[in-house]
Amino acid sequence: MSTVHVRVYVTPKRGILDPQGVTIERALPALGFDGVSGVRVGKFIELDVAVDGGSPEVVRAEVDEMCRKLLANPIIEDFTFEVDA
Amino acid sequence: MSTVHVRVYVTPKRGILDPQGVTIERALPALGFDGVSGVRVGKFIELDVAVDGGSPEVVRAEVDEMCRKLLANPIIEDFTFEVDA
Repeated sequence: MSTVHVRVYVTPKRGILDPQGVTIERALPALGFDGVSGVRVGKFIELDVAVDGGSPEVVRAEVDEMCRKLLANPIIEDFTFEVDA
Repeated sequence: MSTVHVRVYVTPKRGILDPQGVTIERALPALGFDGVSGVRVGKFIELDVAVDGGSPEVVRAEVDEMCRKLLANPIIEDFTFEVDA
């Protein structure tokens, strides 16, 4: 059975506090990196999905549902994903 | 001062245990998603870097150093990044 590779990007929604991003932004100047702003930390998830004769549209719909149900928290996070051809 | 947007992708190295990925892979079938394998969870970090007259090469070198020193753990993680034109 063939699989397609999927990359999912999960990011905190605008306006939602991102403690990891704040921590990184505060730590950078102490390491000699000035002028960095807007740090936001999200998740980068890679997975392989079996296609089993399904069309790319079917795979995309399945991944979208996975993101809504498990990979992201749609209340506080946005997500996008790419499905390899 | 103008800034460039940077996207950093941090992934667990091959062969390094990824407990988040294992957990997701085990949870998916219970939610009705079969045929998903190779789940790996990393970080997706966005940031804006002030350019202050520096060339794109200077920005790339600075971000590479940031990744090595703070954003990723090079012992157990790989990283790549994209700098917007």
